[in-house]
Amino acid sequence: MTQLETQLIEWRRDFHQYPELGFLEMRTATIVADTLETLGFEFEIGKAVMNPDYVMGKPDDEETKKHLEWAKENGAIEKYLGYVSEGYTGIVATLDTGKPGPTIAYRVDMDALPIFEATGDDHFPVEKGFRSTTENMHACGHDVHTSIGLGLATRLMENKDQLAGKIKILFQPAEEGTRGARSMVEAGAVEDVDYLIASHIGTGVPHDTIVAANNGFLATSKMDVTFKGVSSHAGGRPEEGRNAMLAAANAVINLNAIPRHSGGATRINVGELHAGSGRNVIADHAALKIETRGETSEVNEYVKAQAEAVIEGAAKMYGATYNIELVGEAENTNCSLELAEVLKGVGEEAGLTGELKSDAAAGSEDATFMINAVQKQGGQATYCVFGTDLAAGHHNEKFDINESSMLPAVETLFASATKLSNQ
Amino acid sequence: MTQLETQLIEWRRDFHQYPELGFLEMRTATIVADTLETLGFEFEIGKAVMNPDYVMGKPDDEETKKHLEWAKENGAIEKYLGYVSEGYTGIVATLDTGKPGPTIAYRVDMDALPIFEATGDDHFPVEKGFRSTTENMHACGHDVHTSIGLGLATRLMENKDQLAGKIKILFQPAEEGTRGARSMVEAGAVEDVDYLIASHIGTGVPHDTIVAANNGFLATSKMDVTFKGVSSHAGGRPEEGRNAMLAAANAVINLNAIPRHSGGATRINVGELHAGSGRNVIADHAALKIETRGETSEVNEYVKAQAEAVIEGAAKMYGATYNIELVGEAENTNCSLELAEVLKGVGEEAGLTGELKSDAAAGSEDATFMINAVQKQGGQATYCVFGTDLAAGHHNEKFDINESSMLPAVETLFASATKLSNQ
Amino acid sequence: MTQLETQLIEWRRDFHQYPELGFLEMRTATIVADTLETLGFEFEIGKAVMNPDYVMGKPDDEETKKHLEWAKENGAIEKYLGYVSEGYTGIVATLDTGKPGPTIAYRVDMDALPIFEATGDDHFPVEKGFRSTTENMHACGHDVHTSIGLGLATRLMENKDQLAGKIKILFQPAEEGTRGARSMVEAGAVEDVDYLIASHIGTGVPHDTIVAANNGFLATSKMDVTFKGVSSHAGGRPEEGRNAMLAAANAVINLNAIPRHSGGATRINVGELHAGSGRNVIADHAALKIETRGETSEVNEYVKAQAEAVIEGAAKMYGATYNIELVGEAENTNCSLELAEVLKGVGEEAGLTGELKSDAAAGSEDATFMINAVQKQGGQATYCVFGTDLAAGHHNEKFDINESSMLPAVETLFASATKLSNQ
Amino acid sequence: MTQLETQLIEWRRDFHQYPELGFLEMRTATIVADTLETLGFEFEIGKAVMNPDYVMGKPDDEETKKHLEWAKENGAIEKYLGYVSEGYTGIVATLDTGKPGPTIAYRVDMDALPIFEATGDDHFPVEKGFRSTTENMHACGHDVHTSIGLGLATRLMENKDQLAGKIKILFQPAEEGTRGARSMVEAGAVEDVDYLIASHIGTGVPHDTIVAANNGFLATSKMDVTFKGVSSHAGGRPEEGRNAMLAAANAVINLNAIPRHSGGATRINVGELHAGSGRNVIADHAALKIETRGETSEVNEYVKAQAEAVIEGAAKMYGATYNIELVGEAENTNCSLELAEVLKGVGEEAGLTGELKSDAAAGSEDATFMINAVQKQGGQATYCVFGTDLAAGHHNEKFDINESSMLPAVETLFASATKLSNQ
Repeated sequence: MTQLETQLIEWRRDFHQYPELGFLEMRTATIVADTLETLGFEFEIGKAVMNPDYVMGKPDDEETKKHLEWAKENGAIEKYLGYVSEGYTGIVATLDTGKPGPTIAYRVDMDALPIFEATGDDHFPVEKGFRSTTENMHACGHDVHTSIGLGLATRLMENKDQLAGKIKILFQPAEEGTRGARSMVEAGAVEDVDYLIASHIGTGVPHDTIVAANNGFLATSKMDVTFKGVSSHAGGRPEEGRNAMLAAANAVINLNAIPRHSGGATRINVGELHAGSGRNVIADHAALKIETRGETSEVNEYVKAQAEAVIEGAAKMYGATYNIELVGEAENTNCSLELAEVLKGVGEEAGLTGELKSDAAAGSEDATFMINAVQKQGGQATYCVFGTDLAAGHHNEKFDINESSMLPAVETLFASATKLSNQ
Repeated sequence: MTQLETQLIEWRRDFHQYPELGFLEMRTATIVADTLETLGFEFEIGKAVMNPDYVMGKPDDEETKKHLEWAKENGAIEKYLGYVSEGYTGIVATLDTGKPGPTIAYRVDMDALPIFEATGDDHFPVEKGFRSTTENMHACGHDVHTSIGLGLATRLMENKDQLAGKIKILFQPAEEGTRGARSMVEAGAVEDVDYLIASHIGTGVPHDTIVAANNGFLATSKMDVTFKGVSSHAGGRPEEGRNAMLAAANAVINLNAIPRHSGGATRINVGELHAGSGRNVIADHAALKIETRGETSEVNEYVKAQAEAVIEGAAKMYGATYNIELVGEAENTNCSLELAEVLKGVGEEAGLTGELKSDAAAGSEDATFMINAVQKQGGQATYCVFGTDLAAGHHNEKFDINESSMLPAVETLFASATKLSNQ
Repeated sequence: MTQLETQLIEWRRDFHQYPELGFLEMRTATIVADTLETLGFEFEIGKAVMNPDYVMGKPDDEETKKHLEWAKENGAIEKYLGYVSEGYTGIVATLDTGKPGPTIAYRVDMDALPIFEATGDDHFPVEKGFRSTTENMHACGHDVHTSIGLGLATRLMENKDQLAGKIKILFQPAEEGTRGARSMVEAGAVEDVDYLIASHIGTGVPHDTIVAANNGFLATSKMDVTFKGVSSHAGGRPEEGRNAMLAAANAVINLNAIPRHSGGATRINVGELHAGSGRNVIADHAALKIETRGETSEVNEYVKAQAEAVIEGAAKMYGATYNIELVGEAENTNCSLELAEVLKGVGEEAGLTGELKSDAAAGSEDATFMINAVQKQGGQATYCVFGTDLAAGHHNEKFDINESSMLPAVETLFASATKLSNQ
Repeated sequence: MTQLETQLIEWRRDFHQYPELGFLEMRTATIVADTLETLGFEFEIGKAVMNPDYVMGKPDDEETKKHLEWAKENGAIEKYLGYVSEGYTGIVATLDTGKPGPTIAYRVDMDALPIFEATGDDHFPVEKGFRSTTENMHACGHDVHTSIGLGLATRLMENKDQLAGKIKILFQPAEEGTRGARSMVEAGAVEDVDYLIASHIGTGVPHDTIVAANNGFLATSKMDVTFKGVSSHAGGRPEEGRNAMLAAANAVINLNAIPRHSGGATRINVGELHAGSGRNVIADHAALKIETRGETSEVNEYVKAQAEAVIEGAAKMYGATYNIELVGEAENTNCSLELAEVLKGVGEEAGLTGELKSDAAAGSEDATFMINAVQKQGGQATYCVFGTDLAAGHHNEKFDINESSMLPAVETLFASATKLSNQ
């Protein structure tokens, strides 16, 4: 096993043991920062690379402070903690070769999920002793992504003489719930980028295969909706209530009844609904967790606009007020096939089986904001997947990857940098 | 049989044969006018006694014109037709005795129902040859009420020397649907009235019994509601529609879900709903017939206000517009017991069994506008019922009364005038 | 202050400091039992006086066990704890005079509410140092009722020579949520009773006034409803879900739309609704807290039957299953006025202002099961209210009574026993 | 202009003037029969080629009889009227060459739409004096299709020596609403068919272009749904009603809320809803016109199954009963490309621009039953479109085609027969 491979596994298992939810990746980010500094990278961290106006679904102050304490006690690097203590945990690392050439960016994500990791002995992290120490879990492989990002940084620095232009690595917070990418785009993280490659491990792609252009993401919006009414005694003064639960119930049904769209598939879901505070009290509040999706961003916008009308109307029917908070968003995308060809090529050189393109619907991803931004400014961008053997599906408590997939991913990304910077 | 009794039966059978719906009582009103003139009464007819701004649920011009032709061909008195040709068919007859005394008013109604009268030989009007000549029917006894009004006019004129003050008889259009009374009140028909007696035949009260104060009417509002959306092809362009049927369906359910009121009984009904124009077309229109009721006018206003909010919200949910037209309204009421005592007394003298008061819920009545207006200005008012044997319930195709109930009703009302004008 | 008055205050403040929720009145019941024993009463406690088949809305075993531990640590009398350790906390105390005479029963209740008591210095229990030691609160005066029951027991025993027949005092658990009374009725607690007097403090009746027959209780049913569906990924496999939230939302709206009843007022409320487990997951479960009410038990049964149809239909629409658990029930009632006259008389002799009867709607009460059972077997029964100055309304965090109201209540009840047993 | 071209125009204008709705094509079918007989074709007509068990959405007896009278008075050929007098108006014409060879079938449809044709002078049928004489209209070009069918018959008979095997022409009733095809399939009309070509004029395809394989039809089911409840007086006895309108309103909303399907696009529409009979009466009936669609027949079946559950549940909620009548159905399809290549070839030879295939969504078509049946038994089948200049879109009151498109269509179909029978 090469030193880098050993290092990748070490990083990955460390991050795996200390999973952090979106906008709380304080330990993770400070370790990334420290490693980048050691490697000799320049980097920006925190609000410098995240526009707070576009941060969505961020935990409240109390939760953020509480997690800061946890991070301090669990290995965060004190030196960088000030930059991320309010939950702005993004990092943009830059290697400026000084030579003329394109700007090439790689995006990896860092956050974990609120899933309780499996405890059985047949679960590899248990067997090897790096099971999560908390109630959260890296059940989507972002621990792996962060490690690949650091591995890529290592290889780039080792070989910076072979490179030209600028190479950036974007360590993104809060991909789960599609919450973090947009704030980095709006802070200008990709505005100088000519080539962007976002990557993901797993997703059902066969082991040691690279899909160089993974399309099919659905545009999506995540919304937290609240209705506020007036409570009253249901037996004694029913007419004095303004029933927020009735408003919410109407919203739930009619959100599902939003017309289909001839422009492509749509989805709508109310995943959670909590309303009322006592059997004999007219409910004065209701809270809903909603998501819309569309085959294109335009179709998603249609569903979102209809959803807002439904919510407004439902509130009006019962004299309630409402609030809609956007807590996540992503776009659809069309990967740049020219770039994907390059990536497929270097992947095959690194020993992987190459597939140019997949259009299989694949949920939603906020790297799409970065991809679309780069393409809009004339650059090329793609989203690739590195296949691996999965112990169980993503978001499953037994999710695990084959760690041998990390090194080829690093080598492929590194080779793409070499290739692209010297075109 | 006395001459008046014979005359009452003649009038009643004539009106019964030519039933006219609300605001179309052209034949009826001109015959009433002609009879009043013959008797020597002063009277006003048409817009002089009806404020058009408060006429509700009036048929449109086309229907009105069509009925005018019918009336001309079916015995309307040409001479008065000009006054009622637009559908303002109310009449206020006045007998001014010239002697000081109170103003006493009697209210009768004239309109029929869109019910197809029974055709069997066991139905008295069939047997006696005075079944309706049209598709409408006097299935609530207003033919009887109009006849009683004319009988009362006859008795008053015959005995005007015994009377003092002024005696008025209000012949009201469109009581069905509670549409006509308010326009007469708003035209000032009762503004000089000290005593008002409205009367009804039947309603389940035993034969030859008078209930002198019939309370328990529910306040009500009748509304025609339309939703207007945008049609589109349901298969090809579902997203381009604005579904008026979905707005209407939500309205229907949530109207029924309007909270109960601790201040008294409420009712809400959507009696008719028609929406859409083709299986594969998103419905761009929907029409609803609605009514609200409340144990008090205040409670009814509450339901009405909630209904408007529901309708507005339902329209908003689906991007539809809406229109609410008030097509009928009535209030609740508390009869003046002092006046009722007088009425009960003279009723008993006329051979009837007297009951002072009933609070049994009894649907809605727009004479309540007149009653409340008189009471508000310091007068006394009541709503009495003359019991009779019914062949079948009100609004039934076999409805019929015992004609021998008419004369005692006339005598009772006449005696009340004598008594009240000489108090 | 008399010794009894001092004792009443002492009891009341002690119970107030240690409030216990329904079917968990272990400390309270064992102290009551111990006091009864000291006084020389015979009594039965636990399952002997509660039929488990008719216990509704009882906390689960875990909560019961946990509370048992609390009770042990907070003053429960060990000796009787075995009888009530499973949450059957009712007590029937009997004084058999040995002399022929009627059986007279008094019912008091013992449970508290899940309300966090006010902490301000202006709150009397805070000022006097007897504020609740837990998160629950005697915010409805049942601490007072239990004390009055013990005060009555004291006076009866002191004067047993003046009495004849049998006198029973029923200490009932779980009146809140109308859960406990029926199980005592079904265990035979009132089957020998000739006269039953249930009593309550406060409820807006003026200080030092007794309302001897408090009618107007609405019959009610409390139901916990769950829908169970099938979850699936809302983006990837929407068609595989069976959406329990949609079933629940339809139930909520259509429960509110259950038709009004001409037989009297109805109420329906869904006070709480919780559904779903994640934004992007089709909800596979939903839980609702429902209550129905009716002016009569018959009307309430109508609403309940309609509710069951709505719930069944709503589940069917979305392929969900459902469960309805009855967790509380009460009937309406007509107090025996003859008994109320006696009670009013003795109340006036005790210095109170007497009012025979009130029909004001007053929520629901499960003493109605006892009242109706006694009347059905030919006895007389009434529900009386002892007015007091309230610091704040019932179920308010600042609820408090004027403690000087306790003694007259005890004296009145005692006097009624004397009077009735010697009639 | 050739004689055939003149004849085609004559037929077309005659059919256009006498449009007949589905299952009422009595005049059309008897003229077709008479023409076929004159040409020397064998044919079967009526129930012989339509299985009554699979006829959907057929007008009732009264309407059928009434139309029969109309047909008699408007040019139907008496001789064949007996076969079609009950509304079974399909015809299968067969030319058996006696030579070995395949069985080739052509399907045309004959029914018109309930659309009132434009009356302006700029409308070609008005200008040329062949506007519809009734309230219906050939606004989808089926008059053209029938004429093409007869033109094809003419050309086949003229050239029968060049042909081999058997050639069939299927004149189908009631394509509008996708009602007629299945009954012909179930009567065995295509069970011996090796090649089937269904054709349509217009649909937005450019003039003189042939699309040889028109895929993209959505599978569909058309359903008439009724709810039956119990009426009662909304003010007096609301509890006695079983509200069919409320059941229907719930059905409407929840039908629209049927979950999307990951297997392809779905559609659902309630196009018409009529409920209730009076403002103050609880509605005891409601009637809905519904259609479901799916990208595949499987997906459509899913929507249909969900729809049935929604309807059943909605009825259950309000104690109503329901009935679902299937009044139309169609499948999706994949045209046989090998056959389409042949068709495209001969079309190009006939001077048309050829396009092999279109996947544009194109509503629904019940020729799909025939296509799928033929493919299932190992044959080839396709659905082609002959482009033409349209004056206005299909189903528009100004719809009209360029009549010069008819001859090339006939020639193309004829050439395909020659080609296929001699392969």
